[in-house]
Amino acid sequence: MAYNILNSDNITSYLLSLTTIASFFKDDQLHIEEIGDGNLNFVFLVSSSKNPQKKLIVKQAVPYLRCAGESYPLSKERMTYEIRSLQYFSNITPFVPKIYFSDEQMSVIIMEYLDGYIIMRKGMIEGTYYPNFAEHISSFLATTLFKTSSLYLSSKQKRELTAMFIGNTELCKLTEDFVFTAPFMQHQTNAQLPELADIAQKISEDETLKVEILKLKYKFMNQSDALLHGDLHTGSIMINKEKTCVIDSEFAFVGPFGFDLGALIANLVMSWISHSIQDDSETYSQWVLQTTIKVYKLFEEKFLALWDESSKSALFEDQFATQKMKKAYQKECMLSILQDTIGFAGCKIMRRQLGIAGVEDIRGIKDAALREKANRLALHIGEKFIKNHTNITQIEDILELLKA
Amino acid sequence: MAYNILNSDNITSYLLSLTTIASFFKDDQLHIEEIGDGNLNFVFLVSSSKNPQKKLIVKQAVPYLRCAGESYPLSKERMTYEIRSLQYFSNITPFVPKIYFSDEQMSVIIMEYLDGYIIMRKGMIEGTYYPNFAEHISSFLATTLFKTSSLYLSSKQKRELTAMFIGNTELCKLTEDFVFTAPFMQHQTNAQLPELADIAQKISEDETLKVEILKLKYKFMNQSDALLHGDLHTGSIMINKEKTCVIDSEFAFVGPFGFDLGALIANLVMSWISHSIQDDSETYSQWVLQTTIKVYKLFEEKFLALWDESSKSALFEDQFATQKMKKAYQKECMLSILQDTIGFAGCKIMRRQLGIAGVEDIRGIKDAALREKANRLALHIGEKFIKNHTNITQIEDILELLKA
Repeated sequence: MAYNILNSDNITSYLLSLTTIASFFKDDQLHIEEIGDGNLNFVFLVSSSKNPQKKLIVKQAVPYLRCAGESYPLSKERMTYEIRSLQYFSNITPFVPKIYFSDEQMSVIIMEYLDGYIIMRKGMIEGTYYPNFAEHISSFLATTLFKTSSLYLSSKQKRELTAMFIGNTELCKLTEDFVFTAPFMQHQTNAQLPELADIAQKISEDETLKVEILKLKYKFMNQSDALLHGDLHTGSIMINKEKTCVIDSEFAFVGPFGFDLGALIANLVMSWISHSIQDDSETYSQWVLQTTIKVYKLFEEKFLALWDESSKSALFEDQFATQKMKKAYQKECMLSILQDTIGFAGCKIMRRQLGIAGVEDIRGIKDAALREKANRLALHIGEKFIKNHTNITQIEDILELLKA
Repeated sequence: MAYNILNSDNITSYLLSLTTIASFFKDDQLHIEEIGDGNLNFVFLVSSSKNPQKKLIVKQAVPYLRCAGESYPLSKERMTYEIRSLQYFSNITPFVPKIYFSDEQMSVIIMEYLDGYIIMRKGMIEGTYYPNFAEHISSFLATTLFKTSSLYLSSKQKRELTAMFIGNTELCKLTEDFVFTAPFMQHQTNAQLPELADIAQKISEDETLKVEILKLKYKFMNQSDALLHGDLHTGSIMINKEKTCVIDSEFAFVGPFGFDLGALIANLVMSWISHSIQDDSETYSQWVLQTTIKVYKLFEEKFLALWDESSKSALFEDQFATQKMKKAYQKECMLSILQDTIGFAGCKIMRRQLGIAGVEDIRGIKDAALREKANRLALHIGEKFIKNHTNITQIEDILELLKA
């Protein structure tokens, strides 16, 4: 249906006009609550007044940045890419919310309410352990990256998939600008923490570092390995002790294998930095570190297992090569994914200290001296990741780089 | 207008219904001659009976492979990509034919008749010198590759360009199959020259070689550097002593920088092989070799000159980096273009010996022993190109690899 903005006055009649939703709620009266605390979109929690555990989430994009108001236009078509990616992911992995309804014209998606989950970043700041996280997120990453690549799809399927996301220009541009560019130069959008002015200046003059950043930015723009979530930090993961669910995939596009992996590793490393610096005991920070390594190792295992099962794709068919050749190629491919991952992780860590958007794990440290220490440690680690990523041969190599 | 196949009965009324074409010929009577000797399309030469130097070429794709007949379907949409690429190229380079009219629905393009040109492969087989070729083709390559890349376009422009060509699935698949796959395995489409059976077998078992070929094929499919011609061999170049014109760009898509360069280098090297083996004197083969090196060096110079002039693109803006940083990044970028070029050239050389399509320069050698010698030398050189491409640091390094 044609686009119109949903609000508390019109949303009930809209929902009841949708067969799936009307049948979900039957004749129950609906309770509507606007709960969006995100920056971009309007989010409504819709529940049955009679049966309050019957709940759905209605998410709609408006043609501006919600947190900034109508004067900050941002095309509502971003929802198109969230809808398409969520639909694609939900066909191949269980670690995304169930979709009940979507409408690209209306920029609306209606999905499962994730009852009993919290945002992972919040949970990690509170020091909560998530025993199933590494298993779940490594499955999500292995499946989504492998099954949307030329290692699995046919040439035609891969091109069709790429075409579905090629128009996600605005959000890709945000990443190009705010992850790979502005943080590393004088730019009005940077947070410009006065206590970091010296190091920000030094970074902006570091030729070796910036050439590597340009190479990584170029890969982000021009290496079309697989369908990415595009913004896979711990704030895009809903979690509890049992379950894990990846949300908010509006940045989805076909890009380099290492980008989602790098974003996740970066956010786990920043949690580790935060806890290492603040906690009296090392117990939680050690769990975070072990989890970081485990996520990556499980990802590699599962990605290779999927590949071993597959006998024909755009790139490869078993008749072309012996098993020995396939293994030799796999080894080179996995190494390049690992190196890209660490490079992208480095950019993501650094930009969170210098750019427009900090992370609560570090920005929320109350003691100013400790916070600055965390910022500086993160910058130091990010820089080492970027400068050394092409020398990494196994994920455990980052342990050496994490030593301050 | 809706698609219908043009023939000698209906073409005149079709042409006169097009304002541009009607006004080109005014009231002259038209002379129509079907001249297509290509494999894919119907080509008509239309001239004025009164004024025979007034000529145009009408090219139409049919929904099958012209040379094989209606039983070999091939979607006529391939013409869409020839139209789009020719339009794009003609806005940035003079080295393509002038377009008078195009219609994607009709799969028709009407363009300049290249009077006084011949197909470059033919000219080179006859030993003709083309003194302006290196200047012209290096300009074509530098301009088309630079101005369609993230080094020149904005992020949005680059994505829009990629989207225009992402649907060219069928012809990209032909390259994936017949350049990177079938020639290096047992495959029914291979020419299967019995005298090459031993070496074909050895190649199909060479692990190092095939892992490199897989890496190059992967780049062909997933590295979206620039808009490519997609099939830039010497049969796609019309030439004379003064002028050069690139035709037949139906394989166009956004792919790796080195692919068109590699195709051209491969075809120049095969001409060099053909003349080295057949000619009594080295004069022409030396010219071919010097031209090969000159084409690449001029391409590099011109590409960098365009880049130096450009101050803002998707990747780069001058405020981000000092001139010294820009130079350091350029150096790495140019090295990777060179290495990809030699790798792709190696695949192109080998596939012309083993696969479905030979080149006349070598296939046309009348003496069977000399022909086999040329085949074997080409395979040897192609293999060296592929295995050594990541060690190349300057184009002159190929001279060492060409020594048998």
